Amino acid sequence: MEHIRAVVVGATGYVGVEIVRLLMSHPMVRIKYLCATQLGSLSDVFPHINRRCDLLISQFEDVDFSQVDVVFLCLPHNISNKLIANIPEFVRIIDLSADFRIKSLDIYQQWYGEHSAQYLIDSAVYGLSEIYRREIKNARLVACPGCYATSMLIPLIPLVKDNLIKVDNIIVDAKSGVSGAGKVLKQENMFCDVNESIKVYSISHHRHISEVEQELSFFAKKDVLLQFTPHLIPVSRGILSNIYLNLNDKVSIYDINDALLSFYRASDFIFVDNDKAVNTKSVIGTNFCYLGIFPGRRENCIVIVSVIDNLLKGAAGQAVQNFNIMFSLRESLALLQTAIYV
Amino acid sequence: MEHIRAVVVGATGYVGVEIVRLLMSHPMVRIKYLCATQLGSLSDVFPHINRRCDLLISQFEDVDFSQVDVVFLCLPHNISNKLIANIPEFVRIIDLSADFRIKSLDIYQQWYGEHSAQYLIDSAVYGLSEIYRREIKNARLVACPGCYATSMLIPLIPLVKDNLIKVDNIIVDAKSGVSGAGKVLKQENMFCDVNESIKVYSISHHRHISEVEQELSFFAKKDVLLQFTPHLIPVSRGILSNIYLNLNDKVSIYDINDALLSFYRASDFIFVDNDKAVNTKSVIGTNFCYLGIFPGRRENCIVIVSVIDNLLKGAAGQAVQNFNIMFSLRESLALLQTAIYV
Amino acid sequence: MEHIRAVVVGATGYVGVEIVRLLMSHPMVRIKYLCATQLGSLSDVFPHINRRCDLLISQFEDVDFSQVDVVFLCLPHNISNKLIANIPEFVRIIDLSADFRIKSLDIYQQWYGEHSAQYLIDSAVYGLSEIYRREIKNARLVACPGCYATSMLIPLIPLVKDNLIKVDNIIVDAKSGVSGAGKVLKQENMFCDVNESIKVYSISHHRHISEVEQELSFFAKKDVLLQFTPHLIPVSRGILSNIYLNLNDKVSIYDINDALLSFYRASDFIFVDNDKAVNTKSVIGTNFCYLGIFPGRRENCIVIVSVIDNLLKGAAGQAVQNFNIMFSLRESLALLQTAIYV
Amino acid sequence: MEHIRAVVVGATGYVGVEIVRLLMSHPMVRIKYLCATQLGSLSDVFPHINRRCDLLISQFEDVDFSQVDVVFLCLPHNISNKLIANIPEFVRIIDLSADFRIKSLDIYQQWYGEHSAQYLIDSAVYGLSEIYRREIKNARLVACPGCYATSMLIPLIPLVKDNLIKVDNIIVDAKSGVSGAGKVLKQENMFCDVNESIKVYSISHHRHISEVEQELSFFAKKDVLLQFTPHLIPVSRGILSNIYLNLNDKVSIYDINDALLSFYRASDFIFVDNDKAVNTKSVIGTNFCYLGIFPGRRENCIVIVSVIDNLLKGAAGQAVQNFNIMFSLRESLALLQTAIYV
Repeated sequence: MEHIRAVVVGATGYVGVEIVRLLMSHPMVRIKYLCATQLGSLSDVFPHINRRCDLLISQFEDVDFSQVDVVFLCLPHNISNKLIANIPEFVRIIDLSADFRIKSLDIYQQWYGEHSAQYLIDSAVYGLSEIYRREIKNARLVACPGCYATSMLIPLIPLVKDNLIKVDNIIVDAKSGVSGAGKVLKQENMFCDVNESIKVYSISHHRHISEVEQELSFFAKKDVLLQFTPHLIPVSRGILSNIYLNLNDKVSIYDINDALLSFYRASDFIFVDNDKAVNTKSVIGTNFCYLGIFPGRRENCIVIVSVIDNLLKGAAGQAVQNFNIMFSLRESLALLQTAIYV
Repeated sequence: MEHIRAVVVGATGYVGVEIVRLLMSHPMVRIKYLCATQLGSLSDVFPHINRRCDLLISQFEDVDFSQVDVVFLCLPHNISNKLIANIPEFVRIIDLSADFRIKSLDIYQQWYGEHSAQYLIDSAVYGLSEIYRREIKNARLVACPGCYATSMLIPLIPLVKDNLIKVDNIIVDAKSGVSGAGKVLKQENMFCDVNESIKVYSISHHRHISEVEQELSFFAKKDVLLQFTPHLIPVSRGILSNIYLNLNDKVSIYDINDALLSFYRASDFIFVDNDKAVNTKSVIGTNFCYLGIFPGRRENCIVIVSVIDNLLKGAAGQAVQNFNIMFSLRESLALLQTAIYV
Repeated sequence: MEHIRAVVVGATGYVGVEIVRLLMSHPMVRIKYLCATQLGSLSDVFPHINRRCDLLISQFEDVDFSQVDVVFLCLPHNISNKLIANIPEFVRIIDLSADFRIKSLDIYQQWYGEHSAQYLIDSAVYGLSEIYRREIKNARLVACPGCYATSMLIPLIPLVKDNLIKVDNIIVDAKSGVSGAGKVLKQENMFCDVNESIKVYSISHHRHISEVEQELSFFAKKDVLLQFTPHLIPVSRGILSNIYLNLNDKVSIYDINDALLSFYRASDFIFVDNDKAVNTKSVIGTNFCYLGIFPGRRENCIVIVSVIDNLLKGAAGQAVQNFNIMFSLRESLALLQTAIYV
Repeated sequence: MEHIRAVVVGATGYVGVEIVRLLMSHPMVRIKYLCATQLGSLSDVFPHINRRCDLLISQFEDVDFSQVDVVFLCLPHNISNKLIANIPEFVRIIDLSADFRIKSLDIYQQWYGEHSAQYLIDSAVYGLSEIYRREIKNARLVACPGCYATSMLIPLIPLVKDNLIKVDNIIVDAKSGVSGAGKVLKQENMFCDVNESIKVYSISHHRHISEVEQELSFFAKKDVLLQFTPHLIPVSRGILSNIYLNLNDKVSIYDINDALLSFYRASDFIFVDNDKAVNTKSVIGTNFCYLGIFPGRRENCIVIVSVIDNLLKGAAGQAVQNFNIMFSLRESLALLQTAIYV
């Protein structure tokens, strides 16, 4: 079988280099171009890549798309939607920015500003692999979810679909490693500012709220507002999200457990473990999402703890999982390497 | 004026050495004894103390209490209540364990096990300095609150007292540095296990729940159940607690702000800052508690972020603050050193 | 071709679990037994292993060696030499302890104490893969080098062999992550003791000195004494060793560079990079050793910086590399996964 | 007695805020101006300062020097020497940049570039407090040493003066926390780049070499070249320098020990401890320098380990110590607070 020819745009970012790493070990893929603003070779920027990838970095304008089957766009929001018109129709696109996640142009503009490729919004598929597998398979453009959004929606959507939880008082308290902020020079991401501290930011107005509310509202068939508090913690990778829920009448924690176990029974990546391993160390370097379900102190209240690697299941890993789905490959191809723990 | 003569029991623990450090700079105190199980000098264990403290470590049994005015007990729970009978009546006691925090023996035994000095429970005063100042002043035995409990009760008690918030769905999601676990050899506190990870533990059954529920129930005049999730994060010090609240009818976030500002107007240590500095780095090394009050995404919901140094306002700092109150000294004596930031 | 059947003894240690991880992705290996003192499954101890390895942990006594081709012993020194008599002659052994590294019983006893399997010392091969490839191929028992020793000997042996450097004043200043100390409960490896500090330890008397002196003396054909200072730094993994050297007459830094480039030209793992990437982040998760060669400030002096992952090229990776050599497989099998960087 | 009126220029940098912190607790000082390019109050930038310092930040041009006795210049090199002409003669200056450390204009220009205030170089005193106490006392302009330089020169100068060591092969291998790089937005100081790694940089060409060679050459009465390797480690503060030395004939390690003990017998800050506490945690937050003296593996070789807090004894602490000397105050005023350890 012939290789699928891929381009990674934004290859020198934290997410971009992860996609490169995963594709390098993917048996069905040939990377044709790495695009970035820096020139040179990728191992100049990331010396751990070493001689494993000898491709020089190209300019996006120099890509010959007749040689390309799929493009991974690892760019900040509002950049993807400007570039995308230059990609021919026959090339499939996996976008990791926020640009095509939001179905409502109004809501997009409210949270992110102007949009330069509105004609593509409708046909884009929200790339939460386990939920939209069928739609992803046939999509030309897949919009991969945000890292925080992925960690929340994986446990929430099955419960909302089955009408097991109250949707009017969902609270999520989430903590992320610093790589989630991207490779951007900002004082607040300097070592001395992050080290030995934990801080909250963007309480109740982090942008991922918009996509989570969109998805929960869709499955709940009514408007859902999400209380969401993100934090920065002094680690490079990992997200831990605590989800505080009230159960619907006659629903027990066992029903919650059963619903998630059953929904994710066939999944390669989602594990409903109840109470073990609810720490980020257990998932770093993997495409896994571990869920722990805990009784609350008050009746009918529960806490679900969801942990992922923000750069993998929260970004590059889910993108490659979507790629596998789009090209009818085994969903876990190149995604089951055991990671280092310590 | 004569010095007040103090004993620190458990001086080689993380809290003990902080009390020693604070008392060393306290103009009214003379440390008479340092007690611990290790012998030698304190700077053998903590070389940063250097030649500043030349006291040798004593055994508790060798203390001549006729030379002592006050004892700081920095011991694990269930140890304080065994030692305490040996301390003569005229010596005042500041206990940092959980042993005398809980007024109901039943509840104590349910969370902590047997109690060997029940006769002292009734007269002990819960040492949340800003709330029980008057009672502390005259107490013989002050039971300093737990670190998590302190971070929560400082914002919660004024709001419950004034009946501003609903008490039936309070949720606290809190994160602590590793020193909160004490200087105990456990695999889970080893560098390689903690580093580069965040984990939840004791969801809904952490022991500090008992004292927080006691205090909230007292001020609410009805039983309050607390939903509480603690986390371990890879820093040495600091607690950040997020408190999710629903407001009572006709109460606005401005009322919350005013209530806390007014309650803590005269405080040396509690700062109601609304939205700045809600990170632990801003309070490490200080006896401060910084509060940020944020609107929720849903009407009538708010989030209060409370940050303290778990070893200072959460332990040794509050203990010295209580000492100042007990001996009619200025409450902030020895507690206003500016800390290092980076 | 049939699989090679392996046992990993000490599978729940930091090195053991790395060997398991590497062997799980090795196309020619079947793991038959995991031995450790803890029972249960490996993913109870290391949840990141997940369902990838469903073997239960066995007791060493319960191993049926008739089903086994090779044993990896990941045990502290002085334990390997007690167990080893129970392994039948036809089973090949890769030992990761210090027990069979030292050829002179006298020197072994001086640094490590008694030895219970002296009859095996002579036939054991020092498993520095790039140096002793031929001997390793035919050995029954391979003694893998220490992590610090590996980082130093890789650059030093070619230079000593070619008589390019003075051997009477070699100085090595090396820094290691905490996993190098093993999974041992010691106060000095607790998070709060390691975090935000760097310390020296065992100056001039670290045990790895003995094996490095043995090897350098052998190649120099005279006694070499090594000045060696190890440090503990607050990272989980990685060793960076600075090697201060004086060149022999008429030898230039270009000769040093050429000698190392030429010696390691065909190597999959050793890279002579001169000046880039001399940080541990570039090799963590890999079996690589990166060397940087820098001019000194004084004539005829140079500094070689050598970085490895202490648990991989310094332990489990080199062990699997030796395994590949012993069983005539491609030397890099299962060892060329690209690692995560951030 | 009247207060001494001080200005801190560069008050929002890591060193500047430390000087402010120390001066705030100094009984003889009144801070008249804080200068920086950011406006607002200092606690906007450093919230831990809190209400303790209510001075607004001024522009340097707005300082009324008739109200000022002393200026602390906490600026990058090549900035101090441009500003300094604007400071009237009667104001004493403590400069923390490199601009007035180097006596030879040639050498300055070779390492740092142009110099705009050459007329001041001759009269400037190199502010290594324990060595140049007498000269500092009467200086108008004191040039505080670099952080690495301080850690090395404290042990080296007494030994070179007494002709106890060979000066032709001194090697220093030093490790620094990230605050040493200043509060500068650079990719290499971002959390994700520094975290979980150690790296060497500027081998044999770090700028502090120039001042160390100047001082050693002066005391040795001949040219000394320093082999120096600095490292960045993932901690905020602290320098640990290993100094490899060869002893002169008939000099023993005991002589070294005696020489340093005797030289620093009366010092408040330098402790010759031989072998304990050679970690940076023991000195962070203090103005101490701890020295450990260790036998080498080869005869006549020794290793001296020197640890300081780079922002205190390596910068702000030594600056305040020099201030005390210049104004005939007790040398340790405001510098003996016990620091937190964990």
